[in-house]
Amino acid sequence: MVHKYAPKSVVRRLPVYLRILDNLILNDVEIISSKELSEETGFSAEQIRKDLAFFGAFGTRGSGYNTIFLREKILKIIGLDEQTNITVIGAGHLGIALIRYNVQKNPYVNVVAAFDIDASLVGQRILDVEINDISKLKETVKKYDVKVAIMTVPAEHAQSVVEKVIESGINVIFNFAPVKLRVPENIHVHNVDLSIELQSLIYYATANR
Amino acid sequence: MVHKYAPKSVVRRLPVYLRILDNLILNDVEIISSKELSEETGFSAEQIRKDLAFFGAFGTRGSGYNTIFLREKILKIIGLDEQTNITVIGAGHLGIALIRYNVQKNPYVNVVAAFDIDASLVGQRILDVEINDISKLKETVKKYDVKVAIMTVPAEHAQSVVEKVIESGINVIFNFAPVKLRVPENIHVHNVDLSIELQSLIYYATANR
Repeated sequence: MVHKYAPKSVVRRLPVYLRILDNLILNDVEIISSKELSEETGFSAEQIRKDLAFFGAFGTRGSGYNTIFLREKILKIIGLDEQTNITVIGAGHLGIALIRYNVQKNPYVNVVAAFDIDASLVGQRILDVEINDISKLKETVKKYDVKVAIMTVPAEHAQSVVEKVIESGINVIFNFAPVKLRVPENIHVHNVDLSIELQSLIYYATANR
Repeated sequence: MVHKYAPKSVVRRLPVYLRILDNLILNDVEIISSKELSEETGFSAEQIRKDLAFFGAFGTRGSGYNTIFLREKILKIIGLDEQTNITVIGAGHLGIALIRYNVQKNPYVNVVAAFDIDASLVGQRILDVEINDISKLKETVKKYDVKVAIMTVPAEHAQSVVEKVIESGINVIFNFAPVKLRVPENIHVHNVDLSIELQSLIYYATANR
């Protein structure tokens, strides 16, 4: 069965709603209108109503959304109601930063292992996460049902690494290498290219030069 | 004089064109059509023509764009024709990763210094970049005409740090802290929230669960 996904733009906004709901609940706010959510997010109230309506009727016309109810719904829609096992491939500074952040501050994921090709790193631990040789990837993915790989490897290794990742059974990849990976259609790759983002920022720094 | 910026979406695509042009020039390709650029980028040919036309007439109808000419134009538009001085605030693993990457692989910027509040880090160097106490920020910004600050500080410190950054004279901020910073209108903040991006990815990993 082919799964029909929600539009990408909607999926990208869901965790933003979640973070705002977390804050509201922390501050004992029980009800929020789409207009108030709009002020918090910068998305239009209409956009927000449309986004949420995509998954069902979660609000009450004229009164708004119950924060706790909506948070639980969104957690379920994204799949954050259960912890997801993930791995980090490439244990350089960026990899270590992402391991530490996710272990310490992200309650929704469990970093089961890290991988690297550098023999001097293998066996070391970042917090409780062991760095393994990349040859152990498939075994680990099967054992822990790992769903997502974060790839922080140099650009020149990214294509060969992503092929190993796919072969291990992982379908969802968060790629930080500044290259376009060639992958089969059923594989979901999300690229974050920090150098491209920095370059586009320089436009605003120099437009008056 | 108020500078009129190009639309954000256009500015974000410019460095993507640049990277593709770099590759084409490396492979001695002299002319590229918007259709071929479309295949490389995934943006529509019409979008590409519109983006580039925003800044002037760079192509020849029916034959395409000269790669070297277009690359030079885009470098100038973004402001990458001269190196831009930047700083990294927060010398944790993410900060170190970004310093190393930009020093070693980004020819368009010059990381003049890093800053941290941790006294045990002050005086250390990442490659050639010295970590200074944050109290030295303003002095450094003035001395080197620093245009962009990359902020990799914990969420709880981000607001107080961004106020120091603005006070130092920097107007463009690349923020990795997962919080919405309150800044005056003339300050350009670009947020990359890696935990939100990872959370939205989990949707694709668990939609069939």
